Amino acid sequence: MVNFDFKNPTRIVFGKGTIPQAGSLVKEHGGSKVLLHYGGGSIKKSGVYDTVVKSLTQAGIDFVELGGVQPNPRLALVKEGIKLCREKNVDFILAVGGGSVIDSAKAIGVGTPYDGDVWDFYLATAVPQKNIPVATVLTISAAGSEMSNSSVITNDDGKFKRFLDCPQNYPVFSILDPETTYSLPAYQVGCGITDMFVHAFERYFTTVKNVDLTDRLCEAIMKAIINNAKRLMNNLQDYDAAAEIMWCGSLAHNNLAGTGRIGDFASHMIEHELSGFNDVAHGAGLAIVVPAWMKYTYKHDIPRFVQFAVRIFGVEENFHNPEETALRGIEALSEFFSSVGMPKTLKEIGIEEKDFAAIAKKIRKFDAANDTTGNFLPLKSADVEKILQLAK
Amino acid sequence: MVNFDFKNPTRIVFGKGTIPQAGSLVKEHGGSKVLLHYGGGSIKKSGVYDTVVKSLTQAGIDFVELGGVQPNPRLALVKEGIKLCREKNVDFILAVGGGSVIDSAKAIGVGTPYDGDVWDFYLATAVPQKNIPVATVLTISAAGSEMSNSSVITNDDGKFKRFLDCPQNYPVFSILDPETTYSLPAYQVGCGITDMFVHAFERYFTTVKNVDLTDRLCEAIMKAIINNAKRLMNNLQDYDAAAEIMWCGSLAHNNLAGTGRIGDFASHMIEHELSGFNDVAHGAGLAIVVPAWMKYTYKHDIPRFVQFAVRIFGVEENFHNPEETALRGIEALSEFFSSVGMPKTLKEIGIEEKDFAAIAKKIRKFDAANDTTGNFLPLKSADVEKILQLAK
Repeated sequence: MVNFDFKNPTRIVFGKGTIPQAGSLVKEHGGSKVLLHYGGGSIKKSGVYDTVVKSLTQAGIDFVELGGVQPNPRLALVKEGIKLCREKNVDFILAVGGGSVIDSAKAIGVGTPYDGDVWDFYLATAVPQKNIPVATVLTISAAGSEMSNSSVITNDDGKFKRFLDCPQNYPVFSILDPETTYSLPAYQVGCGITDMFVHAFERYFTTVKNVDLTDRLCEAIMKAIINNAKRLMNNLQDYDAAAEIMWCGSLAHNNLAGTGRIGDFASHMIEHELSGFNDVAHGAGLAIVVPAWMKYTYKHDIPRFVQFAVRIFGVEENFHNPEETALRGIEALSEFFSSVGMPKTLKEIGIEEKDFAAIAKKIRKFDAANDTTGNFLPLKSADVEKILQLAK
Repeated sequence: MVNFDFKNPTRIVFGKGTIPQAGSLVKEHGGSKVLLHYGGGSIKKSGVYDTVVKSLTQAGIDFVELGGVQPNPRLALVKEGIKLCREKNVDFILAVGGGSVIDSAKAIGVGTPYDGDVWDFYLATAVPQKNIPVATVLTISAAGSEMSNSSVITNDDGKFKRFLDCPQNYPVFSILDPETTYSLPAYQVGCGITDMFVHAFERYFTTVKNVDLTDRLCEAIMKAIINNAKRLMNNLQDYDAAAEIMWCGSLAHNNLAGTGRIGDFASHMIEHELSGFNDVAHGAGLAIVVPAWMKYTYKHDIPRFVQFAVRIFGVEENFHNPEETALRGIEALSEFFSSVGMPKTLKEIGIEEKDFAAIAKKIRKFDAANDTTGNFLPLKSADVEKILQLAK
């Protein structure tokens, strides 16, 4: 285990019927002038918008609105939000939606009190010192942004998708009502399930030794996702399964399962370029990248891939041929992604071989000195191209 | 899953060599006049005291000291601490020790700004409104108090041991250096392992249905404890095992694994009376009570006991006789407690049959209307007596 410094201060208010608490929670956490931030209007159809507005009004909270957040949220709208917050003296942001809306709200939160360009934070050329607090009402189980310090924003100027992790990004509270996910299309539910699975998965693949407890925490999350995904895909309004999946989404990415270890995250970096390039749904992109990443890297730590196969998918271990067991784990994961409706190839999402070199080149490199991304096996652009070849 | 409201704001600074950060962390968290609270002097022998004092001094932090916390920490010393904090205008408490020291510090923290008797909080006749912040340097892996909202105090006047759970009780930060546990006697390490195991165990035994993720989180913690206990008991200075066990202790009791479910906690309530009565080590008392509690209650939910046996101890399931599988799980747990040096009977800890009625009568009842304790199977005093009979 490696040394760590962990704190996750987000308060979670979980369960059916909790959204009417939004107004009183905003008040309790010091909000008086709120930016209500949301996406394309699905919250208006589902009634969540009305419930939130009623609750804010009843609590005597004044608010302004900014809708229109797209999947792969854009920097342009973030800048519009920053302008609005400054003009209207907003002191609290309430994001109502999924990961894109929450990530956009976080960017507005750190950008508003900052004199420079908020994109500096995403390029890691500046570090946020303060922010306007952000809270959330979650309506999609996927990104885990409701309990994480992460935000991912796409800059249309060049299709760059970049992340920012910082303590200010932890929402002060998040309301998680699983019933809000009832009206989502199955494909989007599948994308969310894939995204959260991969958050635990990326933490699982580490080169740090003696991480028994956090291995088991990652396994607990991945197994609960698999078990409940089946129930949920059969009936999108199964409350129990929707609730398990929603809480899995938060715990997969709230950093607890990553304490004392160094996760990989190359698959996320590769996928960010795919969805930055072609506006692919993040989960769908991950479902294509991850098995290819596994095929490219498994020989570097076969015992870990065997552990994954046996503990996550119950693959019967071939003690005399660990590689076979490892490969059967990769197959099992591919089948799981297919079972929740995910694509298998880059071709299916309109990315062609001629684009691979450009995508590989754009990847954010963790290790600038060595020009590599990922920690389990540091990848150069040439490695990324080979992974894309395995996924074509 | 049941609705829940969860927040755990404690910052964890984990790993070898982290204690010299104490002074700067106190400063960062707003402390200027500190009460340094500790136990019987083992921290002076181990050098932890010197490291902390040096670090406080280097950070320019003024402090007063109160040592002498006993296992099963006493109300009398808490009151002495409250008096001292008021006299010296203390604004921050740093507890250096194990669960007893931390629990005593928490009681001083809520008691100092309170006009009434701090014991009111433990009798649940008053609720804390504010406190002096508490931080910790942990030296014993056991109680989980370093990341929990709990405090347990013994009132010598009548040997009552009572708990207080409240948001103020979360430490603002806790420093966890596994090397501090190297000098503990094996018996105390075994008691700590038992205590933390039972924290996850009490949450596991619930009547709430559809708690798949948190079942698996509890299982992750219990399995990691079992796996690393063996290594640690073989070599008390195995850093990797000591680190796993230390982090297990925090996560077993930080409430995350209990979200969405209602734990039992009858075994804790029974054990509190044993250790209030005879100053038994808490872990040793639990090792005696828990298997007896299991034998008394298992018929009320055999599938859960089968799940425990199969998933925690890898008992081969007898599909035609679930009761046999359940009973083998209880045996396996008894054997595990023995393997870490715990006693098996009340007789071994000096508690006799003639005391059972008095102990059973004193138990704190969760449900005052029905005069019962515990949630998995609510127990009346007569039930508790029967459990003590099974443990005699």
